[in-house]
Amino acid sequence: MILSALLTSVGINLLLCILFFTLYSILRKQPSNVDVYAPRLVAEGKLQNSSGFSLDRLLPSPGWVRRAWQLSEDEILEAAGLDGVVFMRIFTFSLKIFSFMGLVGIFILLPINYVGKQLNAIDFSDLPNKSLDAFTISNLEDGSKRLWVHFAAVYLATGVVCYFLYYEYRYISSKRLDLFYSSKPQPHQFTILVRGIPKSSESTSSNSVYNFFAEYHPSTYLSHTMVCRTSKLQGLITDAKKLYKKLTHLKSDAHAQHKSRRTGFLGLWGQKETLVDHYGKKLEDLEENVRMEQSDVSLAREEIPMAFVSFNTRYGASTALHIKQSDNPTEWVTEVAPEPHDVYWPFFYATFLPRWISKLIVIVATIILTLLFLIPVAIVQSLANASQLVKWMPFLKGILTITFVSQVITGYLPSLILQWFLSIVPPIMKIFSSMQGYISHSEIEKSACTKVLWFTIWNIFFATVLSGSAFSMAEFFLEFKNIPQTLAIAVPGQASFYISYVVTTGWTSVSSELFRMSPLFWSTITCCARGSDNEVDVSSVPYASIIPKHLLFVLLGITYFFLAPLILPFVLAYFCLGYVVYRNQLINVYKPKFDTAGKFWPIVHNSTVFSLILVQALAVGLFGLKLLPLASSLILPLIVLTLLFNEYCRKRFLPIFQTYSAESLIKKDKKDHNDPAMADFLNKLVPAYRDPALMPLHYSRNANDHSTPLLS
Amino acid sequence: MILSALLTSVGINLLLCILFFTLYSILRKQPSNVDVYAPRLVAEGKLQNSSGFSLDRLLPSPGWVRRAWQLSEDEILEAAGLDGVVFMRIFTFSLKIFSFMGLVGIFILLPINYVGKQLNAIDFSDLPNKSLDAFTISNLEDGSKRLWVHFAAVYLATGVVCYFLYYEYRYISSKRLDLFYSSKPQPHQFTILVRGIPKSSESTSSNSVYNFFAEYHPSTYLSHTMVCRTSKLQGLITDAKKLYKKLTHLKSDAHAQHKSRRTGFLGLWGQKETLVDHYGKKLEDLEENVRMEQSDVSLAREEIPMAFVSFNTRYGASTALHIKQSDNPTEWVTEVAPEPHDVYWPFFYATFLPRWISKLIVIVATIILTLLFLIPVAIVQSLANASQLVKWMPFLKGILTITFVSQVITGYLPSLILQWFLSIVPPIMKIFSSMQGYISHSEIEKSACTKVLWFTIWNIFFATVLSGSAFSMAEFFLEFKNIPQTLAIAVPGQASFYISYVVTTGWTSVSSELFRMSPLFWSTITCCARGSDNEVDVSSVPYASIIPKHLLFVLLGITYFFLAPLILPFVLAYFCLGYVVYRNQLINVYKPKFDTAGKFWPIVHNSTVFSLILVQALAVGLFGLKLLPLASSLILPLIVLTLLFNEYCRKRFLPIFQTYSAESLIKKDKKDHNDPAMADFLNKLVPAYRDPALMPLHYSRNANDHSTPLLS
Repeated sequence: MILSALLTSVGINLLLCILFFTLYSILRKQPSNVDVYAPRLVAEGKLQNSSGFSLDRLLPSPGWVRRAWQLSEDEILEAAGLDGVVFMRIFTFSLKIFSFMGLVGIFILLPINYVGKQLNAIDFSDLPNKSLDAFTISNLEDGSKRLWVHFAAVYLATGVVCYFLYYEYRYISSKRLDLFYSSKPQPHQFTILVRGIPKSSESTSSNSVYNFFAEYHPSTYLSHTMVCRTSKLQGLITDAKKLYKKLTHLKSDAHAQHKSRRTGFLGLWGQKETLVDHYGKKLEDLEENVRMEQSDVSLAREEIPMAFVSFNTRYGASTALHIKQSDNPTEWVTEVAPEPHDVYWPFFYATFLPRWISKLIVIVATIILTLLFLIPVAIVQSLANASQLVKWMPFLKGILTITFVSQVITGYLPSLILQWFLSIVPPIMKIFSSMQGYISHSEIEKSACTKVLWFTIWNIFFATVLSGSAFSMAEFFLEFKNIPQTLAIAVPGQASFYISYVVTTGWTSVSSELFRMSPLFWSTITCCARGSDNEVDVSSVPYASIIPKHLLFVLLGITYFFLAPLILPFVLAYFCLGYVVYRNQLINVYKPKFDTAGKFWPIVHNSTVFSLILVQALAVGLFGLKLLPLASSLILPLIVLTLLFNEYCRKRFLPIFQTYSAESLIKKDKKDHNDPAMADFLNKLVPAYRDPALMPLHYSRNANDHSTPLLS
Repeated sequence: MILSALLTSVGINLLLCILFFTLYSILRKQPSNVDVYAPRLVAEGKLQNSSGFSLDRLLPSPGWVRRAWQLSEDEILEAAGLDGVVFMRIFTFSLKIFSFMGLVGIFILLPINYVGKQLNAIDFSDLPNKSLDAFTISNLEDGSKRLWVHFAAVYLATGVVCYFLYYEYRYISSKRLDLFYSSKPQPHQFTILVRGIPKSSESTSSNSVYNFFAEYHPSTYLSHTMVCRTSKLQGLITDAKKLYKKLTHLKSDAHAQHKSRRTGFLGLWGQKETLVDHYGKKLEDLEENVRMEQSDVSLAREEIPMAFVSFNTRYGASTALHIKQSDNPTEWVTEVAPEPHDVYWPFFYATFLPRWISKLIVIVATIILTLLFLIPVAIVQSLANASQLVKWMPFLKGILTITFVSQVITGYLPSLILQWFLSIVPPIMKIFSSMQGYISHSEIEKSACTKVLWFTIWNIFFATVLSGSAFSMAEFFLEFKNIPQTLAIAVPGQASFYISYVVTTGWTSVSSELFRMSPLFWSTITCCARGSDNEVDVSSVPYASIIPKHLLFVLLGITYFFLAPLILPFVLAYFCLGYVVYRNQLINVYKPKFDTAGKFWPIVHNSTVFSLILVQALAVGLFGLKLLPLASSLILPLIVLTLLFNEYCRKRFLPIFQTYSAESLIKKDKKDHNDPAMADFLNKLVPAYRDPALMPLHYSRNANDHSTPLLS
């Protein structure tokens, strides 16, 4: 890729960004779009619908940027929980490290690379047609003394990144502890989940649970709720919900209300009745079914040998959680209970073996998905190469000779297709994670986040760099010794691809996040069809898909820092845009459904350390190739130091993200001890973990209630 | 190696074994040898010295074999603890699996191998000069259908070994639980060790501990003992002990008592005094020093921020152990306390960082030791090859042409030298483990056992198989993909070496264990010199050196099972001999100094699973080489299944070896609750963990007491 092609790409994407931002600042002011651009505010009732029309509504205004910028961390904490804060700290962290790297890269490394003579002589005349490779380390002669500057830069950058990693880990751990100390009593702090309740012929599982905990935790045990098999019930309830929606829709539609059908077979004969009556009756029948099924489940005790057990103190719950309960380690297995609304009810493996097997299957499935994904990536790779494309599809030759088209295809199309393929991965990974036996939405999101992260790094980075076939990639990892060298040959060659990747995919993804293309599209289509259905779907923050995306750019920035520093301004721009856009979205669009209190940070930390190790392995290989073996071996201590740093952080901070300490639990318990509200809270704790499928259903009554004002 | 050479070697070693066994059955009956062959019985005072002389004393008798054979498991449990039982179960387990493998190997695989035509035509005429390779799988033609029998044998053997592994793990876990349920209250069940007590300017560490546990564990906290820095004191006490020994020796020697010296400079002038008086005075001075130092330590509070904290219930101790105590995970770190007499006082790292760093250093040191050891191994390898020896040292040519000498050198000497080198490794590994920050002799032994095991497998198996240089071995592991093929080429070639290794080293080590050559030697030399010093040193079972030795033979047996089944009878004979000999030694010679209650079994289990994986990887490579790619790929599922089996066992049994469950702890606590002896026990608990260096010293008083009867 030559400089002018890059500049074209930057130009196009800059224009696109400005276009999206401008459109957004106009569209967000249209009352019809509030559901798209501020669903959260609508749902919370914080938005007054300004009915009047003013010219101001048609002019773009940057007010939202200022508001997003001025948000304090406390406001984000309140709006999006500690997870939101952690998410935003990915941006501040990235901005910090890439500002430093950018300064070093652009003002020191780039000039050094450019005056190198390996690829071509120094020549400032034909800058636009210069290959981007002239700005990379490939341009330096073999054995050049100037490579020691790069060597120093790797050491320096590692030091700076590690410093900020440590600082952030410490900051977020202290935030997490502060949050816990200032939290109100919450059901999940007092509750654990018990799996693998042994079957007994004498008593029911529920009695077993009672006997066990009353025997071994007499002073702290409060109550328990058995988990039931409710998949059939959940199906019925979903049906009822759908019918209810249909009914309310019918009732709101004056015309449809008077449509009628016969009651007999296929509606061909029998008494006539209006559709509203027909569906109303059907709903009532369904609800009757649900009620019968509910009492069936409760009476026939279709219990899974699994229960939520509540205690009267946090420390009591923690004690039962951490000490192996039974002599058989596969029975009475305890686990942290999620928040009640965070429980993922459908997939509950109660016993050790099926859960373990399903976990193994999911691991295999994830690996297979990751490997099969290589096929579209290979196609995308061939698209990125215009001459390859002509070879495959000769009829395109005419079009591809036009410089602009060719540049668009090489610079833009490949990333877009890749992007589309990637967008279907997070949902699949979430399904995998839910099958793995996690019991909460938050755990599923976290696990999916890790899966998507490794998937992304593998498929976007390694597959592209090694350009390819599954076989050569397997070879890559099996021939352990050659990894640095293989990387050193392959990675610099892809520098221009990744620079354009950051500009196209990166920038586009941020502006499309802001513009919310598909919700806008659906909202416009269903605008009339929806009628007066006032329910607004506020989605929770899709951490599993967005965190890995940002971490990929962190990886790219760190990896190409000393190879092709030209990438850094674009990465920096990406994080600047992202910083403003995501702050805006956290406040206006998403509403968190759970709060893991910062448990996503260890993923960010590990991924960044991985990036550091990767760049160091690369440096080992590259200095070797550039005939500077001394520099190559002097990088090895840095790898060891980085791994030690990571190990230290694992010991120093990771436990804080796993459990709370006796000290903090007991302090909180003591504070609550004299609180008169605690008795009330403990009473509410008992039914907190009832399966929502077993709650009484009142759709038909609601429907009738609704109908009264509508009909009157 | 040809068959006759093997038979010579077997003959020599069989004769040696018979000789050692006969000598042992005579020597053990001599009263002068009781300290060597039954030190434990002497120390326990169970042995009556039969003073009369009878002919029976000079005749070999097999009575001890019968007695060792007839010992029940309960007797071993009583004599050597659960560790002794676990140790003996290595033998029963090995006998079971190798009986099965032996039957399959000798009666099915061996004939199939022998009728193969790869190496030479079937020929029963010149059996003694037949190469041993004719009995190995190498003799089968490439692509032979008969290889499927070997394939089936690998599957079958894996199944049988896994079944017995599961059975043993279950059996030993249940034994471990039984032992706990039937145990009397023991100090270490009620105590934990706390490291990383934060420094405070306001109060002493001891007060910090009191405040912390009184605050957070008010109902269970009983007392604590600070750990002090006593290395100087320990030096003084060792000096005092030496002086005391010298003094008692002097007093028992009538002649020496009357020797005298002058009190002045270098004994040249001044008053005359007897040596006894001189040393008596010196001892008193030393004791005065010790007392001053002891009070110094107690007063000046040279405390390490580390304490043994005792609780009034087992469950209370376990709670404090399992829940992270402080918000800072590197402070108030809790750990299981060892039994009081098992505590390893000298090396105590109190805080997180120095301990972690020393651990890292030890890991590096262990790796370096393992790699440097290759040099003697390479020398040994060259000795095993007579023609190589002639090339290096031509003057040996004359001797080496004598068939017998050549056979001895190729069959016997190499293993013996290797053996000697190996014998110095366990003590080194124990020093390493003690520097790693373990706080008990048992943990040090266990950690050293693992280190020695991997050291042995690496140096005896891999280094020999890959014959060599450190470089090619590093290459071996870095080129991950080629491991099966490399193994498949190298391992069968070493079959005859390992058959002779089992016969020579294996059998010899068992008989020398019985014969106790070096204690006998020292006992004979020091017999007169010792005088009336009645103290007998009873050593504890050297698990760190003997368990890895047996596990190596398990590895060899499993690995060569389908390659060269001829090894199996010899391995079986090794374990038969070992079974009798070690039962005898556990009762008569060793006295356990600690009981880990079976914690050595997981090491045995893991090592056996490793052997299985190794033989399967070998099979993959070998079937590939033998042009049977289908069989080669059909072994892969077996590897996966074996790993899954191991993973299942890790989840099902390993936790039992790590901690006791709430269920068992509370049951025991409840049982003790009404025991009136408990109050007394808890009082004794308080001083149980005092550093023995801080106990009052009474050597000089003892010496004077002794002297009275001697002088009168």
